[in-house]
Amino acid sequence: MPELRQNMVTKEWVIVASERAKRPEQFKRQKEESEPLPEYDPKCPFCPGGEDKTPPETHRIEKDGSWLVRSFPNKFAALVPEGDTDNKFEGVRRHMSGVGFHEVIAETPLHNQHMADMSAEHLSEVLKMYHHRFNHIAADPRIEQIILFKNHGAGAGTSLIHPHSQLIALPVVPAHIRHRTEEAMRYFDDHGRCVTCEMLDMELVDGRRIVTDTEHFVGFVPYASFSPFHCWIVPKKHHACFGHISRDVMFDMAGNLKTVLKKLCVGLGDPDFNLVVNSAPLDSGNRYFHWYMSVVPRVTKTAGFELGSGMFINTSLPEENAEYLRSIEADN
Amino acid sequence: MPELRQNMVTKEWVIVASERAKRPEQFKRQKEESEPLPEYDPKCPFCPGGEDKTPPETHRIEKDGSWLVRSFPNKFAALVPEGDTDNKFEGVRRHMSGVGFHEVIAETPLHNQHMADMSAEHLSEVLKMYHHRFNHIAADPRIEQIILFKNHGAGAGTSLIHPHSQLIALPVVPAHIRHRTEEAMRYFDDHGRCVTCEMLDMELVDGRRIVTDTEHFVGFVPYASFSPFHCWIVPKKHHACFGHISRDVMFDMAGNLKTVLKKLCVGLGDPDFNLVVNSAPLDSGNRYFHWYMSVVPRVTKTAGFELGSGMFINTSLPEENAEYLRSIEADN
Repeated sequence: MPELRQNMVTKEWVIVASERAKRPEQFKRQKEESEPLPEYDPKCPFCPGGEDKTPPETHRIEKDGSWLVRSFPNKFAALVPEGDTDNKFEGVRRHMSGVGFHEVIAETPLHNQHMADMSAEHLSEVLKMYHHRFNHIAADPRIEQIILFKNHGAGAGTSLIHPHSQLIALPVVPAHIRHRTEEAMRYFDDHGRCVTCEMLDMELVDGRRIVTDTEHFVGFVPYASFSPFHCWIVPKKHHACFGHISRDVMFDMAGNLKTVLKKLCVGLGDPDFNLVVNSAPLDSGNRYFHWYMSVVPRVTKTAGFELGSGMFINTSLPEENAEYLRSIEADN
Repeated sequence: MPELRQNMVTKEWVIVASERAKRPEQFKRQKEESEPLPEYDPKCPFCPGGEDKTPPETHRIEKDGSWLVRSFPNKFAALVPEGDTDNKFEGVRRHMSGVGFHEVIAETPLHNQHMADMSAEHLSEVLKMYHHRFNHIAADPRIEQIILFKNHGAGAGTSLIHPHSQLIALPVVPAHIRHRTEEAMRYFDDHGRCVTCEMLDMELVDGRRIVTDTEHFVGFVPYASFSPFHCWIVPKKHHACFGHISRDVMFDMAGNLKTVLKKLCVGLGDPDFNLVVNSAPLDSGNRYFHWYMSVVPRVTKTAGFELGSGMFINTSLPEENAEYLRSIEADN
């Protein structure tokens, strides 16, 4: 019997189609044989030596006299820093200039290094760069929302192989995030508590969907996750905004993220994936929203049903996903 | 300068990234040479003669003594008809049995017939089948929302080639549709009018984004369309629910849809696409929501930004999309 499950944080329903469910191993990608990637590609604009092929650097983290992580504006930016955020109207139709920031974060000098294979020390430097760029850009009063994300693999929307993340800073709050914030406020008004804190407690008591549990973070497959092996990595301490967290938790966060990524990579055969830092609108109170990271392996396709309903059909069981991921060795 | 545009119906923002914009022709698919598909495939369960390979037929429309269009339950249904819709709770976490309907509509006996190449008479019979199944299933008091959709091509999520549409009937209202309904009610409260009627009037006065304008329907690329060549086909007469329209408009609707599909098919080189009938929740008033069809060519990929924000980056201009589509000959 299939089941409908509601995500208590987003109020989104998902169909868990157990009749159509596949076993965890069936999501494992059978890779075609291909040439291994080189550590260095002279044509790559993100490899060392290509620094003059990118717009001027905005920040760098160094190690042993050369850069380990660097950030710079996206050469093909979706938004530009110059301009005002005045509302403009055509009748009741609202628009504004495409003002904002679109940066790239080169995560490593190595062209072929998978994020799961970085050391926890290295990955925590990447997260510190996320944090630095987030707070630097959040100081611009025109910015209302910052999205940090990574696309790994062509199926996840990458065009450049060299490991990199991106930051897009918007002068508006997307409707989707506005709705989530409203749901979180409603929950707080009904229950006097953050809905994500409540969800995290319930997941920890239940235990069946937990993948990683470290000092400051819990990785789990949500009860109503909308696609197979979709993981949330949630901080135990409540903060609405990623920019507000302490740098002391970065190393623990890196270790947790690395384990989740490694398990996905080994268990699903290096799937394409997206990583997103979900944070509150900048101009919102701290009580309601709870920032978190999500890692979404791209093992299924969206189709007309998802477009029309905004709902998803998950052809796997979150409990089985988590059990499988727990069983995968992630030491390296 | 890129621009942010807000869809006045959904309140969703889109980044129209004009710096990254491609010319309309650049979205045209370069098809690999492949064997043309046969009219009949003896292994296909949707071809004539394969009727016993599908679950028992729920309806058929005949022509010259054999079926032209037929409907039947999906063999791998995401939801099942038997069961109750009682709310169940695990703590504050809500779930329910996966009760509903999941039907397939085989649109034609011909294995290789593109929807754009059906006659308007034939396509209007397909739409009559949509309408019949919608109203038949809407009569079940457990159903709250019906999604009618078509996936064309592997990139749009099809696994079976034979032209078919699907209907999924849900016992819940998806959060996404709830939010749209709320926005439509708010607009009505502010302006005393349906927001989609207002949008349609504005598009007709403006004219730049119109693709087709027939007696009862207008096809256009919305001002804030979230992907290239995304078309809405909106009825001129206000109805919240697809099931409430008169069968008298079917032939005109078919002609309009056929023209939009043919222009997309010729102009973009037979792209994969999704077609969706967007209709109000069954248990809602008639004044606010305005049903419409959307046709979404799958010419771009969603990535981490879209996942995190729910927003889209459109790398083309809706005005140029529409101008290009108007220039494409669609007679056949």
